[in-house]
Amino acid sequence: MFAEIITIGDEILIGQIIDTNSAFIAQELNKIGVSVYQISSVQDDRAHILKALREAESRSDIVIVTGGLGPTKDDITKHTLCEYFGDTLVENHEVLLHVEEIFKKYISSPISELNRQQAWVLSRAEVLHNEYGTAPGMWIQRNGKVVVSLPGVPFEMKHLITTKVVPRIIEGFKRPFIVHKTMITYGMGESAIAEILEPVEVRLPSEVKLAYLPSLGSVRLRLTGKGPDKDQLNALVQSEANKIKALLGNLIYGEDGGEPIEELVANLLIQKNMTLGTAESFTGGRIAQKITSIPGASAYFKGSVVSYATQTKIEVLKVPQALIEQYSVVSAQVAEAMASNLRALLKTDFAIATTGNAGPTKGDADVEVGTVYIAIASPKRVIVEKYLMGSQRDRVVQKSVNKAFELLQKEILKL
Amino acid sequence: MFAEIITIGDEILIGQIIDTNSAFIAQELNKIGVSVYQISSVQDDRAHILKALREAESRSDIVIVTGGLGPTKDDITKHTLCEYFGDTLVENHEVLLHVEEIFKKYISSPISELNRQQAWVLSRAEVLHNEYGTAPGMWIQRNGKVVVSLPGVPFEMKHLITTKVVPRIIEGFKRPFIVHKTMITYGMGESAIAEILEPVEVRLPSEVKLAYLPSLGSVRLRLTGKGPDKDQLNALVQSEANKIKALLGNLIYGEDGGEPIEELVANLLIQKNMTLGTAESFTGGRIAQKITSIPGASAYFKGSVVSYATQTKIEVLKVPQALIEQYSVVSAQVAEAMASNLRALLKTDFAIATTGNAGPTKGDADVEVGTVYIAIASPKRVIVEKYLMGSQRDRVVQKSVNKAFELLQKEILKL
Repeated sequence: MFAEIITIGDEILIGQIIDTNSAFIAQELNKIGVSVYQISSVQDDRAHILKALREAESRSDIVIVTGGLGPTKDDITKHTLCEYFGDTLVENHEVLLHVEEIFKKYISSPISELNRQQAWVLSRAEVLHNEYGTAPGMWIQRNGKVVVSLPGVPFEMKHLITTKVVPRIIEGFKRPFIVHKTMITYGMGESAIAEILEPVEVRLPSEVKLAYLPSLGSVRLRLTGKGPDKDQLNALVQSEANKIKALLGNLIYGEDGGEPIEELVANLLIQKNMTLGTAESFTGGRIAQKITSIPGASAYFKGSVVSYATQTKIEVLKVPQALIEQYSVVSAQVAEAMASNLRALLKTDFAIATTGNAGPTKGDADVEVGTVYIAIASPKRVIVEKYLMGSQRDRVVQKSVNKAFELLQKEILKL
Repeated sequence: MFAEIITIGDEILIGQIIDTNSAFIAQELNKIGVSVYQISSVQDDRAHILKALREAESRSDIVIVTGGLGPTKDDITKHTLCEYFGDTLVENHEVLLHVEEIFKKYISSPISELNRQQAWVLSRAEVLHNEYGTAPGMWIQRNGKVVVSLPGVPFEMKHLITTKVVPRIIEGFKRPFIVHKTMITYGMGESAIAEILEPVEVRLPSEVKLAYLPSLGSVRLRLTGKGPDKDQLNALVQSEANKIKALLGNLIYGEDGGEPIEELVANLLIQKNMTLGTAESFTGGRIAQKITSIPGASAYFKGSVVSYATQTKIEVLKVPQALIEQYSVVSAQVAEAMASNLRALLKTDFAIATTGNAGPTKGDADVEVGTVYIAIASPKRVIVEKYLMGSQRDRVVQKSVNKAFELLQKEILKL
């Protein structure tokens, strides 16, 4: 069975916001065996929304619409849905009480006419209670198909998808099973891997697809199986995965459910009951930020010194000024000192240090833009690697962060 | 005139990646007066791509297609475009040389048959040289309309949009002017603002639209004008902006081109030739990361101590252990000490400090999840504010980061 996602809002079409809602919804639907056929972003425009709804409903069983439910004039989704279903809006008493309660609790001003309208819903809709906001979700069924309307605010939408929409789909629709298996490879390009895997790929069973997902420094291989029998599907995907492993051997660094590498590293640290700190120059705190975005990071992450200025490297990280003068601030020696000193300062088992030049200008050290050093200090030793990461600032930082986690992962596994 | 964007790839429809390409393309098109009518994400499936192309071309003048140009079997865009245009693929000599050169330089393995196929392009296409990758862009014109095919790798796509696609559109198409003006408000909700602005909104000229863009802690008001005469349009939008300012007064904190607040703060620091450092607990380096994502941050940003563990607050930031024991690690007193001590440690003009509990569990301090303290140390004084940021980890961090920049902005303006 298929679903479609329609995100409504001019702000998406002028590029003012990135549509992250669709990826979340697609993930959640996939988990329960619902394939997303198409994602469409359309304007806050009556005719356009109507057309998108018609097209999506003709192709799919479930249409999930987000956005355009706010109280202001540019929000027209509710009225347009009314027109689409030939329905009228009615005031929902429970939603009204909830809106009033929110105003009492957080805004402490009386509820206005505009806010009161948040309680108006399609008469034929089943209301999906939005605990976190004033715009309720709506589940509208017609001729065996469903249109779901959700607010565009990500955390409200997420909560409604998880607690209201997914359970209703599970209850109401028969779905095939979907099994994903992802393997991570480092150090070889997409096409070189594809040539090695050619014999597997030409003989893939029709229920299984293989996709290559290159990202900075790694290629993920994703097998996807889809069918009515879960056990058979698992066996089929596993058997293809085994063939791939036999051909790629050491290139495969891990299997995962698509978790980012910082999560793989976090799990390793937890398993080994060890701790980490970072000393970041040009990565500017991004490594720390990635680690602390995982709930429970305080179990293994003690902190970071973001030593963006040379002076901070000297005064906080105690990198000897003479060392910097001799080798320059972007050097293996300085990276090594940063990692060792941070590890001692924060009393951690591991430390990551980065120093480099992400551009666009040359900065304190006279090295080429894109030159970076990454050091890992472990209880056993300190390693330093040099990389040329190109000339695009964001990309230099992102690639280096990924590389740092990759180096750290290897060092942890070596202990 | 209208454009549409089609992003191709199963990885988008299973939610494995977030489509950031579309927002970038939409932004760039908007700048030159091209409105994006619809964004569609479709599967790596021949029939589906053909249908999406037909629909998009029927509605719009320019269709920009990204993705599916890799060398592996799941990449079918090029063959499908061939079918769509009734064309054949031919080997392009210049692209072949470029692919060979990339292999010589970065991969040092001989070029394979799969990679050789990267040089095959539609015979009727104008090739858009992709300096950074092996898959070239293609510009295909027919009956006054254009289909552009671009690789899905963001930095390759961005470079092609900026240097090849936008100049060709400017040269080949007559476009209206688009003028945006965005004002930032803090401290009042979307609907309350809408009620105040009702008299302006009902009388907006037809060329001008007003949108409300609520985000964590602020609401942006965006006026968009569209028309053939740039000067007249600017005057029209400015006159509406003046009416809004007259009604909202102090609620409006700044005008911008939609820059994030960290950029507004960065510009203030540069203007005043002053410096900043951060002492971050639960924000985990995200403030530092946001600041250093702006090129040139080294002019005003000296660094950060991410003191995630209490021990790091004591040993690196020299927060007295007695203070922590008396008031707890999540307290106004500790936030204040962190800000003052960081400012002294890094010798900066300003320091931001954060301590709080982002959840999901209570952690070292026994305060409610979502309780945060933000302190700003300036040359004149230290201020501390307490907030309850809710129970969603990510949101607590994001709201606090925005709030920290907002508090800093006010303190800088007060000097």
